[in-house]
Amino acid sequence: MSAFDQAIALTSLGGVLFEGRTSAAYANFVGPFGGIMAAQALNAVMQHPQRLGEPVSLTVNFCAAQADGPFSITARPVRTNRSTQHWIIETQQNGEVVLTATVFTATRRDTFKAIEHAMPAVPAPADTPVRGGPARLEWANRYEMRFVEGGMPASQDGSLAPTSRSQLWLRDNPPRVLDFCALTARCDVFFPRLFLRRASFVPIGTVSMTVYFHASSAELAATGMGYLLAQAQGQNFFNGYFDQSAQLWNEAGALLATSHQVVYYKE
Amino acid sequence: MSAFDQAIALTSLGGVLFEGRTSAAYANFVGPFGGIMAAQALNAVMQHPQRLGEPVSLTVNFCAAQADGPFSITARPVRTNRSTQHWIIETQQNGEVVLTATVFTATRRDTFKAIEHAMPAVPAPADTPVRGGPARLEWANRYEMRFVEGGMPASQDGSLAPTSRSQLWLRDNPPRVLDFCALTARCDVFFPRLFLRRASFVPIGTVSMTVYFHASSAELAATGMGYLLAQAQGQNFFNGYFDQSAQLWNEAGALLATSHQVVYYKE
Repeated sequence: MSAFDQAIALTSLGGVLFEGRTSAAYANFVGPFGGIMAAQALNAVMQHPQRLGEPVSLTVNFCAAQADGPFSITARPVRTNRSTQHWIIETQQNGEVVLTATVFTATRRDTFKAIEHAMPAVPAPADTPVRGGPARLEWANRYEMRFVEGGMPASQDGSLAPTSRSQLWLRDNPPRVLDFCALTARCDVFFPRLFLRRASFVPIGTVSMTVYFHASSAELAATGMGYLLAQAQGQNFFNGYFDQSAQLWNEAGALLATSHQVVYYKE
Repeated sequence: MSAFDQAIALTSLGGVLFEGRTSAAYANFVGPFGGIMAAQALNAVMQHPQRLGEPVSLTVNFCAAQADGPFSITARPVRTNRSTQHWIIETQQNGEVVLTATVFTATRRDTFKAIEHAMPAVPAPADTPVRGGPARLEWANRYEMRFVEGGMPASQDGSLAPTSRSQLWLRDNPPRVLDFCALTARCDVFFPRLFLRRASFVPIGTVSMTVYFHASSAELAATGMGYLLAQAQGQNFFNGYFDQSAQLWNEAGALLATSHQVVYYKE
């Protein structure tokens, strides 16, 4: 079992209740990597015997830093329609809520398709250098990242840049076949846009992330262990919170997920 | 009291429970305008005596068409930190969930600011014609819309367009001072992007919408009754669901809100 599968593994305690454990392999500066917490929450829905269809949208809210150790997840299907279902998820530690989420699942039908946000023309993964050396944050070692543009700035001199855009080729390390949980985690790999926009490292933390899935499990399985082109850019930095928009395409140019998040920053 | 204020008015039933009533002034094709349902959910948080700070992010999930008549809203503060607070909201009718939402509120401090997604250069509101005549859907009559580009297509011949972008000057009709609830509703005024991308009208419905607020109540009050430039564009249309991203600036160029939604479409 890969480090990712170990990290998102949950034990069903019956009904809506699941139990999991934090994983040292996905440690962040304080608590776990947000992407793995989001993937755990989604995994409770994926494993739930009453699930109808596949994920279309997910919003996770990070309420507090998670402590190392066990946690419980409740995943409640609050409304089930003919082909759609709405979920409310809460992750708790020691009787306190550390994460909330809502998930929408649906059975999908083959319809008109159009990718409006096309994949930008960039060099192939093989022509893009791998970010070298071990990362300071353990979770970042679980990903292979090849930056096309917008890598972590070398200096912290507070200099201002006109754009916070990053583009990188991305896959799990070691490679793992893509599924909804792995895709969810990858939507949170972007280092804070503030560090690009203004080169200084300040305390920071994502408070809410939304993912829209534009693929079925079949498309994700077909992407397999291939790279995703992951792009993120900030929109507004205002009084302690900024937002970013992200897109993740597979190498064939299918836009598998679009994602957004709002992030706290200290000053 | 304006039609908007009447529509979002709630009666506190004590504790986390509120009661409201649907408003004929905001009727949509089936059930109420989604923007007014989102504003009602947020209003429960705004009126809650335990609220800490102001809204930073909001996600609403539309679980079922609301019937005309009364509804109840529960707004629970599930985690309160020193300067931040996380909420779970459920709207019910006849014992069934019709809407879920999560809201994040915070006390904000004056920090570094940068608008990365700048307002596009467009003609002024006075130089942009008002959409003429009464709208078919009653809620649309509650807004003054002046389309810069991307108005509703005249034909339904199924022709394909390379872009689904709309830009319009927007304010309440009659004009009303801006606040968080009114801004939330305005984030949902965009007609379905699919109707622009492929000119044919099919059954459609938003399933989830997220709003990030980049303003305090002071900035919203200063915007007053002025217009907002509202822009929306689709990213991907895939097997029954498409997503869109939206930005709303005031006339001074402040990006007050960024928003995203995922929308069901029939074929």
